[in-house]
Amino acid sequence: MTKRIDFNCDMGESFGMHKLGMDEEVIKYITSANIACGFHSGDPNWMKKTVDLAIANNVEIGAHPSFHDLVGFGRRSINATYSEIKNDVIYQIGAISAFLQNHPLQHVKPHGALYNQALINEDTAKAICDAILYVNPNLILVLLSGSKWAEIAKSMGLKIALEVFADRAVEPDGTLVSRSKKGSVIHDIDTVVERSIKMIKDGKVEAIDGSIIEYEADTICLHGDTPGAVDMAKKLKNEFENQGIKITKLKEIINE
Amino acid sequence: MTKRIDFNCDMGESFGMHKLGMDEEVIKYITSANIACGFHSGDPNWMKKTVDLAIANNVEIGAHPSFHDLVGFGRRSINATYSEIKNDVIYQIGAISAFLQNHPLQHVKPHGALYNQALINEDTAKAICDAILYVNPNLILVLLSGSKWAEIAKSMGLKIALEVFADRAVEPDGTLVSRSKKGSVIHDIDTVVERSIKMIKDGKVEAIDGSIIEYEADTICLHGDTPGAVDMAKKLKNEFENQGIKITKLKEIINE
Amino acid sequence: MTKRIDFNCDMGESFGMHKLGMDEEVIKYITSANIACGFHSGDPNWMKKTVDLAIANNVEIGAHPSFHDLVGFGRRSINATYSEIKNDVIYQIGAISAFLQNHPLQHVKPHGALYNQALINEDTAKAICDAILYVNPNLILVLLSGSKWAEIAKSMGLKIALEVFADRAVEPDGTLVSRSKKGSVIHDIDTVVERSIKMIKDGKVEAIDGSIIEYEADTICLHGDTPGAVDMAKKLKNEFENQGIKITKLKEIINE
Amino acid sequence: MTKRIDFNCDMGESFGMHKLGMDEEVIKYITSANIACGFHSGDPNWMKKTVDLAIANNVEIGAHPSFHDLVGFGRRSINATYSEIKNDVIYQIGAISAFLQNHPLQHVKPHGALYNQALINEDTAKAICDAILYVNPNLILVLLSGSKWAEIAKSMGLKIALEVFADRAVEPDGTLVSRSKKGSVIHDIDTVVERSIKMIKDGKVEAIDGSIIEYEADTICLHGDTPGAVDMAKKLKNEFENQGIKITKLKEIINE
Repeated sequence: MTKRIDFNCDMGESFGMHKLGMDEEVIKYITSANIACGFHSGDPNWMKKTVDLAIANNVEIGAHPSFHDLVGFGRRSINATYSEIKNDVIYQIGAISAFLQNHPLQHVKPHGALYNQALINEDTAKAICDAILYVNPNLILVLLSGSKWAEIAKSMGLKIALEVFADRAVEPDGTLVSRSKKGSVIHDIDTVVERSIKMIKDGKVEAIDGSIIEYEADTICLHGDTPGAVDMAKKLKNEFENQGIKITKLKEIINE
Repeated sequence: MTKRIDFNCDMGESFGMHKLGMDEEVIKYITSANIACGFHSGDPNWMKKTVDLAIANNVEIGAHPSFHDLVGFGRRSINATYSEIKNDVIYQIGAISAFLQNHPLQHVKPHGALYNQALINEDTAKAICDAILYVNPNLILVLLSGSKWAEIAKSMGLKIALEVFADRAVEPDGTLVSRSKKGSVIHDIDTVVERSIKMIKDGKVEAIDGSIIEYEADTICLHGDTPGAVDMAKKLKNEFENQGIKITKLKEIINE
Repeated sequence: MTKRIDFNCDMGESFGMHKLGMDEEVIKYITSANIACGFHSGDPNWMKKTVDLAIANNVEIGAHPSFHDLVGFGRRSINATYSEIKNDVIYQIGAISAFLQNHPLQHVKPHGALYNQALINEDTAKAICDAILYVNPNLILVLLSGSKWAEIAKSMGLKIALEVFADRAVEPDGTLVSRSKKGSVIHDIDTVVERSIKMIKDGKVEAIDGSIIEYEADTICLHGDTPGAVDMAKKLKNEFENQGIKITKLKEIINE
Repeated sequence: MTKRIDFNCDMGESFGMHKLGMDEEVIKYITSANIACGFHSGDPNWMKKTVDLAIANNVEIGAHPSFHDLVGFGRRSINATYSEIKNDVIYQIGAISAFLQNHPLQHVKPHGALYNQALINEDTAKAICDAILYVNPNLILVLLSGSKWAEIAKSMGLKIALEVFADRAVEPDGTLVSRSKKGSVIHDIDTVVERSIKMIKDGKVEAIDGSIIEYEADTICLHGDTPGAVDMAKKLKNEFENQGIKITKLKEIINE
């Protein structure tokens, strides 16, 4: 069977006069766009432009909700309650959905501190899941492979997509190696490619202690804000195709 | 045939710690709630609470979009472009819709300065209409009876509901008498009731110069922020029922 | 020697259309007003009004800076960096100061989550102190009696005022008893008065375990949002005067 | 006598993650920096960085207050009242001032729509002037040469600096030729330089109809967001020095 992988990337993170990222370039290499919803960046005008860009490039669209923190770009945790988080996520999913007209929203991928907090805080994880179930249980939640959050989401009945960061080292328990540790980021491009292929083909990865662990990948997160990022996207795409891995929309992978 | 009228009221205009309005009281007397969407007031938590309140009271829900101006409570015009207005309205309709789950959104009634600007600025009027057509052409747009905006909306193919302010005097051309003119507001409660009944039953009203003009009413705007407002709602409801006028949801009036 | 105490109260926490608190009432009983600076509530118009109110009532003015979080009313911690907190506090002190013209700003009392975070996080405590030293080392920092933060501020050379919450129980180490514990709030008004007098006259309080500990009080925090709060203010004022305790402006207590 | 001119430029218009402008480059060629105060862009962290940059480069600092409109970058008029505008300006002057410590604030130059509205609306013009008089009558207000606003400010007793846009054509009455008219922008660099020199040396300019009118210049507005802008700054500086015109801080020109 042909192996498949989705490429996702954060998009529409410009704000007013402030242009951010190389959306027009990177859109050519991805299959899923996580579009900012106005809480950490993005505004109604950039949301419209970015939705149009995605549709014109046959890229599926996801909501990219965040804590409400423009100055901090959603990278600072806010000590919000369960229902505050749930309602913030519902609001943002609704806002982006209205720009899609009849085009269905494919997925939800929380941004920055909201994503990271869901990895370590069960209440946050559940509140996000609860919001998605509230709005539309068919939406795919993109979350970190090997995380407790993934288990929580599965047990709550959500459709989930396991996300990997191809250049990040992994602990034996499947969590990411903390950035404060040596070796947390893998800089050698060939190693990154090789590890990605192993994840996709075998559902395994070599952890930082040398052990081989289960590690599934439905989607790889690409960055869109540097020329190097675009090169990385091209490289991964080429190597994957050489290996018979097909870059495929998330919804086709998850709903097959 | 039984004559019918809808009662609409702005709701969910609290914000964070700041409670505003007597939503729990006035909800009992209305058929349509215009719920703030976070741009002039309201926040995701109040939106959820207010949607729940409306559904529990069998009251239909509309979006109440505004210019983005929390300090000014949406009462100050912002010199925004056509597409900025359109995108702001799309965003807000989407945000409130997500809280409704499978309950359909009934209508859209712009708030404050956005409503008033649409009465005198054709571009604003069209941008709002365009936004509604973009999101869902079945949504009913609530706008002022006798206004140029009503004509524009009709010509663009929207479903519209003609709104009247029962205590405001009307010019011979159907527009509201400016608040700066003497006699612009009618204070005598019996006159207010009598005029309302004439609008609903005959589709006519006596203008400020004494002439009788065509003046249709699909919905009456009630206020929800004073005890007096609740009394007015009760009074109108009683008198209307005595006259065989049925307080009816907007969607039943417009879609019949 | 006559014993003295300052009464401080949060003020100017209205926002736009949203009126909050009974500032006009409570202003009559206090000596120091902590005025919101627009980050958790307050806006330039309310700041002006509240500064005028304080000056008209011969009440000294302090900045009441907060995390930037209108929806959460500054009651949610934000995981901000040292310099972000420092700059936020500098900004807010500057903003309120401009409304005072030649009237000197007396003090700074951080709001809500920023205050609470400074009690348990040394970096937050230092960042606030650093901001005050940056703007004006003569400003008095109001902070919790018995706290680690008080020690930090003293060691950094700040003028500090020790604040007590008369109705809260105290641990043997001088920190407040957590609200989750039984007995954390003292409801009996006479006990509250008696404890306050002991703090002011003897610099001691009975901790929750019955031991008597050192516990100084320069200022008592009053609430301004309920009729009961106004009664409490009156009661304390009367009882204190009976006991020969003078309600005195903070600057006279600290700078004597 | 040596003729003198100030070079002013908008600075600190980055916001959070969003870097805008080439402040580090353009700072080398200017004498006065108009620093954004958080209402149209800028945030406390960028304000601190930009103040430090200006001081390190011996550039004087001004407040660059705006309508509160982040999405619109302060380029959209808001229909605010006199006291709302006044209080917004007071607030922003205070906020930037706190970052200056003992370094005195030199001037105030309103941004975007607030500046443009003051040119055509007497109330707006007065509200801004009133705010400056309230905070500090020694602050210099930078406004358009030849404008009604300049007359108003002078009659209210403000210190003013007359600003020119070297590449904009001028009507016989001294106002700028509307951008919608042909010839409103002068593209020939030599003509721009020549006109600037005439303004500075003779206090005159050739209007679009060929007539020579009085047109004083205390400061020239430079742009800081394009490489071309930096080249223009260098060119003007060189040519001015060749002509014996000294680039001089505004406060030395106005307060001499």
